Amino acid sequence: MAEHERPLDDDDVILAGEEQEEGARPDDRIDDERMDEENTLKREFVSSVEDALEAGETGAVYDLVEPLHPADVADLLELFDKDDRATLAAAITDLMTSEVVAELNDYVREEMMEALPADAVAQIAEQLETDDAVQLIEDLDEDDQRAILAELEPEDRIAIQSALSYPEETAGRLMNREFVAVPEHITVGDLIDYLRDGRELPEDFFEVFIVDQRHHPVGTCNLSWILRTPRSIALGDVMKRDQTLIPAMLDQEEVALMFQKYGLISAAVVDEDGRLVGQMTVDDIVHIIAEEAGEDALLMSGAGEGDINEPIREAYSSRVRWLVANLGTALIASLIIAAFGAAIEKLVALAVLMPIVASIGGNAGTQTMAVTVRAIAMNQLTRSNTRRILTRELRVALLNGVTIAVLIGAATAVIFTPLLGAVIALAMIINVVTAGLAGVLVPVAFDRLDQDPAVASSVFVTMITDSMGFFAFLGLAVALQVV
Amino acid sequence: MAEHERPLDDDDVILAGEEQEEGARPDDRIDDERMDEENTLKREFVSSVEDALEAGETGAVYDLVEPLHPADVADLLELFDKDDRATLAAAITDLMTSEVVAELNDYVREEMMEALPADAVAQIAEQLETDDAVQLIEDLDEDDQRAILAELEPEDRIAIQSALSYPEETAGRLMNREFVAVPEHITVGDLIDYLRDGRELPEDFFEVFIVDQRHHPVGTCNLSWILRTPRSIALGDVMKRDQTLIPAMLDQEEVALMFQKYGLISAAVVDEDGRLVGQMTVDDIVHIIAEEAGEDALLMSGAGEGDINEPIREAYSSRVRWLVANLGTALIASLIIAAFGAAIEKLVALAVLMPIVASIGGNAGTQTMAVTVRAIAMNQLTRSNTRRILTRELRVALLNGVTIAVLIGAATAVIFTPLLGAVIALAMIINVVTAGLAGVLVPVAFDRLDQDPAVASSVFVTMITDSMGFFAFLGLAVALQVV
Repeated sequence: MAEHERPLDDDDVILAGEEQEEGARPDDRIDDERMDEENTLKREFVSSVEDALEAGETGAVYDLVEPLHPADVADLLELFDKDDRATLAAAITDLMTSEVVAELNDYVREEMMEALPADAVAQIAEQLETDDAVQLIEDLDEDDQRAILAELEPEDRIAIQSALSYPEETAGRLMNREFVAVPEHITVGDLIDYLRDGRELPEDFFEVFIVDQRHHPVGTCNLSWILRTPRSIALGDVMKRDQTLIPAMLDQEEVALMFQKYGLISAAVVDEDGRLVGQMTVDDIVHIIAEEAGEDALLMSGAGEGDINEPIREAYSSRVRWLVANLGTALIASLIIAAFGAAIEKLVALAVLMPIVASIGGNAGTQTMAVTVRAIAMNQLTRSNTRRILTRELRVALLNGVTIAVLIGAATAVIFTPLLGAVIALAMIINVVTAGLAGVLVPVAFDRLDQDPAVASSVFVTMITDSMGFFAFLGLAVALQVV
Repeated sequence: MAEHERPLDDDDVILAGEEQEEGARPDDRIDDERMDEENTLKREFVSSVEDALEAGETGAVYDLVEPLHPADVADLLELFDKDDRATLAAAITDLMTSEVVAELNDYVREEMMEALPADAVAQIAEQLETDDAVQLIEDLDEDDQRAILAELEPEDRIAIQSALSYPEETAGRLMNREFVAVPEHITVGDLIDYLRDGRELPEDFFEVFIVDQRHHPVGTCNLSWILRTPRSIALGDVMKRDQTLIPAMLDQEEVALMFQKYGLISAAVVDEDGRLVGQMTVDDIVHIIAEEAGEDALLMSGAGEGDINEPIREAYSSRVRWLVANLGTALIASLIIAAFGAAIEKLVALAVLMPIVASIGGNAGTQTMAVTVRAIAMNQLTRSNTRRILTRELRVALLNGVTIAVLIGAATAVIFTPLLGAVIALAMIINVVTAGLAGVLVPVAFDRLDQDPAVASSVFVTMITDSMGFFAFLGLAVALQVV
């Protein structure tokens, strides 16, 4: 009302317009016309790229893709199937920067690189930082690797060969070989002058390492400490002496846990002689943290890598192996049922009820196993507290077992007979407690044998709960003379 | 040999000693006498603390714990049970710094804070950065919260109340309210002088935000760019204009995905009007990334939070709900079996074999579901590629189904009859393909309904594969007149 009573002036209009726009989209990457509220590419946008590609309008495709962030270009490529992906890549050659390649899913990148000639891959590799270049090359055939390495500048080749000399998934393979290391005696002013010189600096860095003459790290300085310190102060007086050093042979899972545990942004990597050879930064680690934390669900279900971009042949081969193993455990359970064939013939209710005991036991075992595997992965479950956790899980299992036993026991007593109700209740308690025991002990045992507890535990836990479920129920039914 | 021929001098001895020490343990946090090769506290070390505690030797306990990193002190506290934990905390009061409290597991921290008087908690909260202080307070009762807030300095109180005004698990709740923001026109030299003044700076920061008069972010400068730029250059000429802004209301899961996708170290948080209100740094995000990536395995198994420090009552309550839901689905499967009771009575082999079909179907469904849930969580599965992924999974399912069908069909044909072999093979293919379909469609459907696909999917998938397993096998047996 009030607004209608006075004429709007320019200021009003501009402010209103700006406020509206900014209120509606505080971030141009989020509430974009291309991105949905989950920050993924909108269906409509992807369709318009598809349509332009099919119509052969290369210029239109380019104009659509050009405003995207490299990570989103990578996402777009991943959304297409193999053939369309190649067409799209050809239409946006200029936009296929090294950043896009670095952001691609491993399977998609490998597939795309295999389709390119060695010199084209070498050209991309040269633009990448060492760690990304290594990722690009490490999964290719040895012949392809050699051809690409031959095309590289000597300096890049040496860096990549040095990385490839470390085992896969170790700090030495993954680290960045560009970092800033200076002696202890130089001052903040010296350092700033050196950095302003700008020779051979990494593009981004978050700390400066202080080394002695033998190139052993003696301390570290966050850049924010340097910026707030007068020029005349020596770095030795600003630096923190106590720093986390990463051995080059350390597995990426342990590296990721160290970054998490100590809240690191970057850290120095040292070789066996304690010499500084590289650094790892947290932006490379977040992928590893997410990968390692997420893979347990896939491993426990036997889905292998579980990547939707994995070739069908590989997905089939890893999953079917698991199903065959489970077929084996199912057969063992069947043998137990077969042993009680005479009882089932007399009382078919046994066949009707027996899967319930096995199924609930399986679920209870999976719950405990998931908790145990997670605690082992996070280094929370160690030799020092295994007994305490086992006691805890058995108490939870007993509570769960009794609750479910009361429910199914009562229902069975009403529908069938009170005695059969007692049998299924007792069998249920036995099986749920067994599940709790197996859910802790099986993964702990695999961990102590230096096997990944996520990989093999569930086959064993399921075998135990299935067999115990059928055995306890059918065995009690016979022992208590239900039939 | 050569060494024996000449007398050792001091230099040799020192060098040899140093080399050995450094060669043996390049990092004092890894090959420590207290830490094992996985960087967790050694059993022997924990036992010696336990023994000293039991003997009441407070001084010895203090000396043992004193050299530990705060994160390791937190780990040590978590290893003990509730009572011993309180005794330990009392023995090392001086070492119970705010860093230790910030590193504690949520449940353990909450339990310890509840045992302390309000002013002691307030004292700890004041030493913490806002985000850590909020974590300390948010899970307490409202009465406790109010008592603690009353004890705080007004400035800290306002910051914490502002954080608590945002919903849990949003950027506004989690962000740090200390950051460096300067106008565009100031020079690198001005900024360095301002930082050297050192008033009210956050302890660590990785970028400087450039804001306009309305406090809207217009660009950002990594500290490494500032350090390499001459004093006279204006920040407006160094900064990057294109930056990722995080809306304060954004959920932590989406924040974590943005940090991963764009490789961020820190990012500005803006309110609805686009004003800069805080920053998030990646060291706070890594915990969220690990939590979000790891929780799917726990959610899919119905283990709730799945934290080994969760009180037994809560663990029981979340798990038993799941088991009751599974009891419901098991009963549906039983109804199907009961409908074929007459057939089972005639041929008990049906009861022996039927769990195999259900079990393999359940496993196949869980595999596909794990892959789908992970792809949805990583924003890899969107409306644009759902159909392609469904086709892919059905192809894998068909391959798996046929392989297992051949194995179990042949075995059944030999042991029982060829016709029963054909029945189980056909039922197996039907059930594994159904499992593939359900494994994709159930989680996708929950996601489209804005429900977490990890939470409810497996109850439905298992129900579908169990029911279909029994129905296809027993139904085909009757239809093909095996009995």
